[in-house]
Amino acid sequence: MAAPGGQCIALYPEKPIYDIPGLPKILAVELIENLIQQAAPFEPKYHMGEVVDGLEEMGDGRWQLTTSKGTTFNVGAVIIAAGFGAFEPKRPSLNGLEIYERLGHGAGVHYFVKNIEDYADKNVVIAGGGVAAVDWALKLVGVAKSIFLVHRRDRFRAHETSLSTLREMVKTKKIILHVPFQLTDLVGDKKSLRTVQIEDFDGNRKDLNVDVLLACYGLSQKLGLVSDWGLEIENRRIETNPTTAQTNQLGVFAVGDIAVYPQKQRLILTGFSEATFAAEAAYRHINSGASPKFQHSTSKGLPHYD
Amino acid sequence: MAAPGGQCIALYPEKPIYDIPGLPKILAVELIENLIQQAAPFEPKYHMGEVVDGLEEMGDGRWQLTTSKGTTFNVGAVIIAAGFGAFEPKRPSLNGLEIYERLGHGAGVHYFVKNIEDYADKNVVIAGGGVAAVDWALKLVGVAKSIFLVHRRDRFRAHETSLSTLREMVKTKKIILHVPFQLTDLVGDKKSLRTVQIEDFDGNRKDLNVDVLLACYGLSQKLGLVSDWGLEIENRRIETNPTTAQTNQLGVFAVGDIAVYPQKQRLILTGFSEATFAAEAAYRHINSGASPKFQHSTSKGLPHYD
Repeated sequence: MAAPGGQCIALYPEKPIYDIPGLPKILAVELIENLIQQAAPFEPKYHMGEVVDGLEEMGDGRWQLTTSKGTTFNVGAVIIAAGFGAFEPKRPSLNGLEIYERLGHGAGVHYFVKNIEDYADKNVVIAGGGVAAVDWALKLVGVAKSIFLVHRRDRFRAHETSLSTLREMVKTKKIILHVPFQLTDLVGDKKSLRTVQIEDFDGNRKDLNVDVLLACYGLSQKLGLVSDWGLEIENRRIETNPTTAQTNQLGVFAVGDIAVYPQKQRLILTGFSEATFAAEAAYRHINSGASPKFQHSTSKGLPHYD
Repeated sequence: MAAPGGQCIALYPEKPIYDIPGLPKILAVELIENLIQQAAPFEPKYHMGEVVDGLEEMGDGRWQLTTSKGTTFNVGAVIIAAGFGAFEPKRPSLNGLEIYERLGHGAGVHYFVKNIEDYADKNVVIAGGGVAAVDWALKLVGVAKSIFLVHRRDRFRAHETSLSTLREMVKTKKIILHVPFQLTDLVGDKKSLRTVQIEDFDGNRKDLNVDVLLACYGLSQKLGLVSDWGLEIENRRIETNPTTAQTNQLGVFAVGDIAVYPQKQRLILTGFSEATFAAEAAYRHINSGASPKFQHSTSKGLPHYD
């Protein structure tokens, strides 16, 4: 993900949330906007699009993190808020997939559209039945040369307005629908994708001659390397003390969906509370046990706040 | 208090709060409005202006509450969210105070203005140096016959706009200022207050001939009868399990400022989290250990929600 917000942004940005106390109804994307704005006076530094792949104790109570981009951080405390893990597109099981994934945008196999211009005058097959599949098909109308939409069921799960536009585009042949069909094979010369083979439930096959396959099967979450850091893991979650967020590794804390303790509730609002416990405990870890000076923002205001 | 909202409403309704996650800045009074709106679909019943003065176990795991109005509740669980206790005005130590307190609004001694009309054509002395003292003095201009404002320091703590209006009213003699002065005595015939005696730090006395004393010395909080219910109390707070909010009495839970456990943080947001733990634990207590069916409002919506 190249933007903060985790599941709220990746999984349900346009869904209303009703259980954030003080916010009777807010869209997930708006909640994240508010939180970014609220954090801003404290000048947090975001490192997006980097996966932490190493976490090592330095012997002096400090920790060293290294990321997939080679960045290293020497820090006094680490708070892991990794949700259910990193988001990865669900990949279809097809011959030569890995090779076609590397061809660059606008060719081969992709899971999201980075720049819509990459698809200009391309023949595109879009696979999937959700919001992403439908919305990308509609967005590529007038850009791509041809658009095939393939789904293994004959119904799509998308916004009603998108579905009604889709029906219009299918009627006017701007989008060619193949339902219920599944992908069965990729054919090409490994330097370019030429054909996507599809099949219905009776075994009838079709060859779609295309440049690009856009596979929109949703996202899955992988805990990834978190499991290699010597942390106590129970059922893919990190065991913590509920009022310090402390893991079994001194100076490493975990909050939110990735943290587990007795009576844990998987709610955003309890994650917020865990984060404050973690912040206080991290402060104490860094300052040899000294507690932070507790002040209410109601009395003291905020740094740099206008 | 005759309105929900506790300290937010009683102590700092017009102060901005910066640390409710998802709300970068909100006035305390607005936070409470939002929470009342958010609770509404669940149809809570509020009993305002009643103090619980009895809590008794019924022997079958249920509890009976009785209130100052004589209402009784037979309930499966009790969640105490009493903050630092009930709010009471700070009372000056003066002769005959109790008698003058009973004379009814617009006469004798009072701590807040119920109906401003009660003060029409009355001679009023207002004592105190905070927002309430200054604002009531200003509000009574044009209503009361005379207004004396008495404060033991020569500076007032109030909004800058109120202070600038106050200076104007003092200059035009709409408000007569006596600073630094303290109240020393009340004189009257016990059926009406006639004179409030004041004194400066050099022992100089003045008699103010008035009908009413409005004493605006702020509010204090009293834990009250909570301490009689057999609950483990530490430093005026109830000891709880941090992830169930359970007290030492089965079926009685405590959340917010009145609850204490190791690493407790006195924040509204951690109180919210404690409330969800209490709700789940109360459900289990009532339903012989069975957990509630956990659903995210994001997927399931709310009862009666439009």
